[in-house]
Amino acid sequence: MPSDQSSAAAAPGSRPSLGPLFDPRAIAVYGASSDPTKIGGRPLDFLKSSGFDGPLYPINPKAAQIQGLPSFGKLAAVPGPADLAIVAVPAPAVLPALEDCAASGVRGAVVLSSGFAEVGGEGTAWQAGITALARRSGMRVVGPNCMGLINVRRRLLGTFTPSAAGFGLVPGRISLVSQSGAFGGYCLSLIRQRGLGLNLWITTGNQSDVDFADCVEHFARDDATQVIVGYLEAATDRQRLFDALALARERGKRVVVMKVGRSEAGAQAAASHTASLAGSDAVYDGVFRQFGVQRARSIDELFDIAYAAASPAPLPRGRRVGLLTVSGGVGALMADVADEVGLDVAPMPEDAQRRLKEKLPFCGPRNPVDMTAQLVNDLSLFESNFQIMLEEGGYDSIIAFLSSVGQVSTLSTALLEQLTAVLRRFPDRTVIMSTLASPEVRKLYEAAGVTLFDEPTRAVRAVAALVAFGQRRVTVAPPPLPAGALPPPARAVNEVDAKAVLASAGIPVVRERVAAGADDAVRAAAEIGWPVVLKIASADIAHKSEIGGVIVGLRDEAELREAHATLLERARTKAPGAKVDGVVVAQMAERGVETVLGVARDPVFGAVIMFGLGGVFVEAFKDVAFRVAPFGIDTARAMIDEVKGRVLLEGVRGKPPADVDALAAAIAALSVYAARHADAIDSIDINPLLVLPRGSGVLALDALIVPAAGA
Amino acid sequence: MPSDQSSAAAAPGSRPSLGPLFDPRAIAVYGASSDPTKIGGRPLDFLKSSGFDGPLYPINPKAAQIQGLPSFGKLAAVPGPADLAIVAVPAPAVLPALEDCAASGVRGAVVLSSGFAEVGGEGTAWQAGITALARRSGMRVVGPNCMGLINVRRRLLGTFTPSAAGFGLVPGRISLVSQSGAFGGYCLSLIRQRGLGLNLWITTGNQSDVDFADCVEHFARDDATQVIVGYLEAATDRQRLFDALALARERGKRVVVMKVGRSEAGAQAAASHTASLAGSDAVYDGVFRQFGVQRARSIDELFDIAYAAASPAPLPRGRRVGLLTVSGGVGALMADVADEVGLDVAPMPEDAQRRLKEKLPFCGPRNPVDMTAQLVNDLSLFESNFQIMLEEGGYDSIIAFLSSVGQVSTLSTALLEQLTAVLRRFPDRTVIMSTLASPEVRKLYEAAGVTLFDEPTRAVRAVAALVAFGQRRVTVAPPPLPAGALPPPARAVNEVDAKAVLASAGIPVVRERVAAGADDAVRAAAEIGWPVVLKIASADIAHKSEIGGVIVGLRDEAELREAHATLLERARTKAPGAKVDGVVVAQMAERGVETVLGVARDPVFGAVIMFGLGGVFVEAFKDVAFRVAPFGIDTARAMIDEVKGRVLLEGVRGKPPADVDALAAAIAALSVYAARHADAIDSIDINPLLVLPRGSGVLALDALIVPAAGA
Repeated sequence: MPSDQSSAAAAPGSRPSLGPLFDPRAIAVYGASSDPTKIGGRPLDFLKSSGFDGPLYPINPKAAQIQGLPSFGKLAAVPGPADLAIVAVPAPAVLPALEDCAASGVRGAVVLSSGFAEVGGEGTAWQAGITALARRSGMRVVGPNCMGLINVRRRLLGTFTPSAAGFGLVPGRISLVSQSGAFGGYCLSLIRQRGLGLNLWITTGNQSDVDFADCVEHFARDDATQVIVGYLEAATDRQRLFDALALARERGKRVVVMKVGRSEAGAQAAASHTASLAGSDAVYDGVFRQFGVQRARSIDELFDIAYAAASPAPLPRGRRVGLLTVSGGVGALMADVADEVGLDVAPMPEDAQRRLKEKLPFCGPRNPVDMTAQLVNDLSLFESNFQIMLEEGGYDSIIAFLSSVGQVSTLSTALLEQLTAVLRRFPDRTVIMSTLASPEVRKLYEAAGVTLFDEPTRAVRAVAALVAFGQRRVTVAPPPLPAGALPPPARAVNEVDAKAVLASAGIPVVRERVAAGADDAVRAAAEIGWPVVLKIASADIAHKSEIGGVIVGLRDEAELREAHATLLERARTKAPGAKVDGVVVAQMAERGVETVLGVARDPVFGAVIMFGLGGVFVEAFKDVAFRVAPFGIDTARAMIDEVKGRVLLEGVRGKPPADVDALAAAIAALSVYAARHADAIDSIDINPLLVLPRGSGVLALDALIVPAAGA
Repeated sequence: MPSDQSSAAAAPGSRPSLGPLFDPRAIAVYGASSDPTKIGGRPLDFLKSSGFDGPLYPINPKAAQIQGLPSFGKLAAVPGPADLAIVAVPAPAVLPALEDCAASGVRGAVVLSSGFAEVGGEGTAWQAGITALARRSGMRVVGPNCMGLINVRRRLLGTFTPSAAGFGLVPGRISLVSQSGAFGGYCLSLIRQRGLGLNLWITTGNQSDVDFADCVEHFARDDATQVIVGYLEAATDRQRLFDALALARERGKRVVVMKVGRSEAGAQAAASHTASLAGSDAVYDGVFRQFGVQRARSIDELFDIAYAAASPAPLPRGRRVGLLTVSGGVGALMADVADEVGLDVAPMPEDAQRRLKEKLPFCGPRNPVDMTAQLVNDLSLFESNFQIMLEEGGYDSIIAFLSSVGQVSTLSTALLEQLTAVLRRFPDRTVIMSTLASPEVRKLYEAAGVTLFDEPTRAVRAVAALVAFGQRRVTVAPPPLPAGALPPPARAVNEVDAKAVLASAGIPVVRERVAAGADDAVRAAAEIGWPVVLKIASADIAHKSEIGGVIVGLRDEAELREAHATLLERARTKAPGAKVDGVVVAQMAERGVETVLGVARDPVFGAVIMFGLGGVFVEAFKDVAFRVAPFGIDTARAMIDEVKGRVLLEGVRGKPPADVDALAAAIAALSVYAARHADAIDSIDINPLLVLPRGSGVLALDALIVPAAGA
C-alpha cells in the first residue's frame, strides 16, 4: 500500500465521529408527516413500530400531534436534548432546518430530501451551504438525496426505504455503506431474505459531508462490526479512502466491495500506451488488492463473502483445502472451481488414503474425499473422515458437500454434533458446509457458528475470499529515492534523455548515446561494443518501430553507415515534421523477456504503476497489474504474480528463468520516483523493459516520459 | 459440427426406444420390501403414495403381501402384462431376474442394485451379462448401480433417492439425465426447491445398456421436453453422442450440460505440443460449441439456464440487450456483466433519449435506462420506457431490474399488466425480470410466462445463454480432400517431408528443399530466391530452435556457407544421437502473424483440431480452440473468433489485418485431412502457421507429423 500515507491511518480522523448519527439518545424528525407513506412520515412510522428506545420529536409547526406524538414548531421547543435529526423538508427549507439543528446542539443529521447537486442550479448552491455548515459546526450530515441509515441493535430505522418496513432484521456483525440509495435498499431486502446478521447500514447519497470513506472509518473503529460491505460508485478523496481502508485492515475488519463500471475501462483514448490502459477500473482493482479488500463481481458474491466472513470461526491459515463429498461429481466440480480461484486441492497422504479405503472400499480417498451415498447408512463416516482429513491431510479448511441431507433434521443434528466434536480438537481450522438445508437446519448450524451454502461452488469461492482475508501481509517499505535522482523533464525529450532520468532514479538502462552523424555513430559503437542497435533520436516520434526507425544487429562500420543513411531517409519521408536530434547508438541487449512498465496519472489516485508482459500481451489480453505509488518490493512482486504472462518469466521451452528480483526492484524504484514527482509526470512508458536471466538484471531498452501539461 | 456424421442423426436409432421405461402401463418391482426405507421398499412406497396411475406388482417369493399389495413369486404369475421392471434384488440375483423379465415381455428394466463393474471381479462379469441380455432381447436396461428414473406427468417415481420423497414435483418442460446418482438426487432436490417444472429425470449409473446419449436422444424426440439438462462424467461413444446432440439441435431442444474435470485438463505430459494441450476437457468445450450446447460452470448456472430456457417466450433474435433499472448502480453492474458475456449494450437513439428525458428529467436515458425510484410514484414509467426501448431501441431482449418491488403484490400485479400489454405489441422480443419476488408474485409472473431472477447478474448470464440457443447456424460442408493428397507418413519424417504431405492436403507451405551439403544449399537458395532461412533437417529433432538449429536472414553465399557450418556443428554437439538428413533451405517469409495449428487424437472424439495464436499465447494463456474433425470454414471461423489473441489478426499498432479467410480455409482443410486419416495420425503440429496480410494467404513454416504407433 502507499506506505508514505498509511502511517496517518491509525490517527483519529480530523472530522468528528459518526457516533451521534448511529447511536443517538433522541431523534428529531424535521418535516414529520402524519401520512406514513410520505418521505417525512415513513421514518417516524418505522421508528415507532420498530421500537427505537429513545424519545422521538416530530418537528412540524402545522400540527400539534403527528402519528400520535406531540409535534414541535422548532427544535428549541423540544423538552429534551436531541442529538440526531432526520430532515425531510423540501430542499429550500433544508439549510435553515440544519442551522436550527446545529444551533440546538444536534450532532448528526440525515437529509433525506432531494433537489440538490443532482438537479444542479440552486440545488448545487444549497448543497454547498450544507457542506460549509457541517464543516463550520462539526455537526455530521448524511446526504442530501440519500436513503438514510439504520442501527439494528438500537432498532433505529432512520430511513424511508420500503425495504425496512416491518423491521425484519437480526443483529449481526455486518455493516454496510452504499453510495446508492436504490442499491442500499435492495441490499437491505436481500439481507432480510437471507437472514444475515446486520449491525449498521447507511447510504451516503450526494455526500455533502459524510462520505464512503467516513463510513468505512467508522465501521473500522466499531467493535461490533466484523465485516464491512461497501458499494462504491466513485472515490473522491484518495487520502481519506486509503486511511480508512488501512485502518480497517489494521483492525482486522474484512472488507468486501462492489465497484461497478468495469466495462467502461479503457474507453477513452489517451496519449501514451500506459495511460490508455489505466482505465480507472483496473486501478481500483489494484487499490483493492493493495488494501486486502475483496471485490465482488455479483450481488450474490458480495453477500456470499459477507456471510462467510461474518462467521465467528477462524480464518483459514493457508490455501490448502480439503473437499469432502457424498457425490464424486460434485467433488470434481468443487475441485475445478477451487483450482480456478487459486486454492490448493492437495492430495491426502498415501497412508491416510489407504486407511480411508479400509473403512470404505468404494470411497474416493485422494481429495476430494468421496464418502458416497454410504454416509446415510453409516453416519460415523463423517466424523472419521473429517478427523483424518484434518489430522493427516493437514488442510487449512474443509468444504463438505452433503447434497440434500440438510433437509432431514435428524441426520443434520447428528452430523452437527460430530462436526463440533471434531472442531473442538482442531480449533484453528475452517469448515464450511454445502447442503440444501431446511430453514430449521440452517438456523441450527448457524447458531453453532457453522457457515452453510446451498450451492457447493459458492462455498468454494467464499473459502477463497476467507483465505485472502487471512493472509498476513508483511509490508516492505518503499526503497529510498536515489540521492542523485534527476527531476522529470519539463518538456518532451528523446529516449536517451528519458532513460538518463530513469537511470538516475534507479532503473537500469541500456548502454547508449546519441550520435550526431555517421562518424560519431561509429565512434559511439566502438565505445559501447559491437554489435549495436541504431535508432532515430527524436522527441517527436513516440513509436519509432512504426516508421521503421530501429535497425538491430549491426556488426561493423559498413553496416552501421548503411543503416544510418536508411534511418535518416525514413525519418525524412515518414515523419517529415519531426525534429531529429541524431541517432541513438545502443548496446545490442542479450535475449530476455520483454515486459512493459509504466506510470499513469489517475484522476483520483494520482501516480499509478502499471506492469505487464510484452506489448501483445498487454494489447490482446489486458493482462496488466496496477498499484498506487509508492510501494515496496513485496507489492512489486504481487504485481508480477498477478499477470498471467508471468509464466514466461519462469522460463519456458528451455529458456532460463528471468531475474524477477531485479524486476521487482525496478518496479518499486519507479513507484518511488513516480510518487515523488506525481504532479510533474503525465505518464512514463518503459517499453520494453528487458528482464535478463536470473542474476543478470533488467534493462530499459526504450522509454518515453510525458511531462504533465503546465507542470 | 462433424458434418459427415450428422446426417445420420435424424434416422431412427438402431436401439429400441426408451418409451417403455418412461411410459409403462404397469410396473413390477423385483425385490420389493415391506420396509419402505429399504432400497427395495422405497420405490414401491413412492409409487403408491405419489399416485402412479398403473398397476404395481411386487415380486418377492417370501411374502404374500408387500406394503398392502399382493406379492408374486415371479413375473409369469402376475395377472396382467408389466412392461417396466424395477430391480432391487442383490447383485447375484439381478441377471436371473432380468432374464425372467425379458422372457415375460418386459420392455424396460431399471436396476437399482449395486455390486457390479464399480466393484470389479464377479460384478464386472454380471454386468457384461446384463449388457448382452439387453442387446439380445431388445429390453432396455437402466443401471445397474443407479438411482432410477422419474416421469412427472405419470407420477412415476422409479427411484429410491430420498429427494423424491413426498413427490413435490410440478410438470414442466425440463428433462434431466445424470450419469451420477448422487448428483441427480441433489438436482431433484434443487428442482423442487426452485419450483422448476420437470418432465423426465433419469440417472444412468454404470450404463450397462442405456447411456447418456440414449437419454439425450429420447429427450430430443420427446415433444414435452423443451430443455435437456445433462450431467456428463465421460462420453463413451462419440458417434452416438454426436447423433443425439445433432438431433436435439435439429429439433430445437435447448441443451445445457455440466461436465466436471476442468482442472485436470492438460495434466499429462505428451509427445507433441498440440497433444499436450488436448486435455480432453478443452475438447469437450469444442464439442459443446459445435453442437450449440451451453456448458454451465456451477449448479446455480445449470438451473438458471434451464429455467430461462424452459420459458414459452421466444428466444432473442440477436445480441442487442436493453437494460431497464430503478438503480443506476445495478444498471452499471448489469452492463458490466453483459459486456463480459458478449451481449451488445447498444445505446438508445439520441431522439429517444431526449424523449425519455422529457418524461423524467433525472432519468438515465442511454442504456441502461434508469427510471430511478420515481417508478414507485409513477408506475406508468414502466410501460412507457418498455415501449420506447422496444420500438426505438430495437432491442432483441430487455432485462428489467426492479429491486424489491416483487415483494409488493399490488405493484407487481400492476407492472405485470403493463408488461403483458407491451409484449402483445412486440411478440418477438424477450423480456426477463429481476426482482426480489415473494412466492406469490413469482407464481403470478411465471404463470404469465415471464422469467424472473432474484439476482440481476444471473438474469444477464441467462439471457446470454438464450441468445446462444437462438443463434441460427448455417452449416457449411467440409471442403473436399484434394485429389492428390498424400497419405500420412508411416514413420517420423523431417519437416520438409511433413510439409509436402500438408501441401498435398491443401495447406500452403513455405518454398523450400532439403540440400545435401553446402554447395547444394547454395544452388537451392538461388532457386528459391535470396534471402533464405537455413535449418537442420532431421526427423529426430522436434524442436529445432531449442538447439539453435535455425538461422534466418542469410543474404548471400558467404553467409549461407558460414551458417551451414555452424548448424552442422550445433547438431553434432547438441543433438549427438540425431540422424541429420542435411539442411533445409527455405524462403524467408514476409512478416505475418504467427499461429499454431494442430491435430491431436482424443481417446473419445478421435481427430480433433487445435488452433491458437503464437507459441507463448498457447503456453501462457491456454488460449486455444478445439473442434472435432472434419468441419467447414464456418466452424474454422468460429475457432478463430474464439481465441482472445485474434485481436492480433485484426492488425494492431499499424500492422495490416491478416488473411483470416485463408487461415479459415487452411484450418478446414487440415480438419478434412485429419478426419480422413484419423487412425494413422497421432498428432500434427504446424508451428508456426504464418498468416500474411489480407489477400496474401498463409504459410506453414514448420511442421511435425507424429504417425500413430502401429499404424
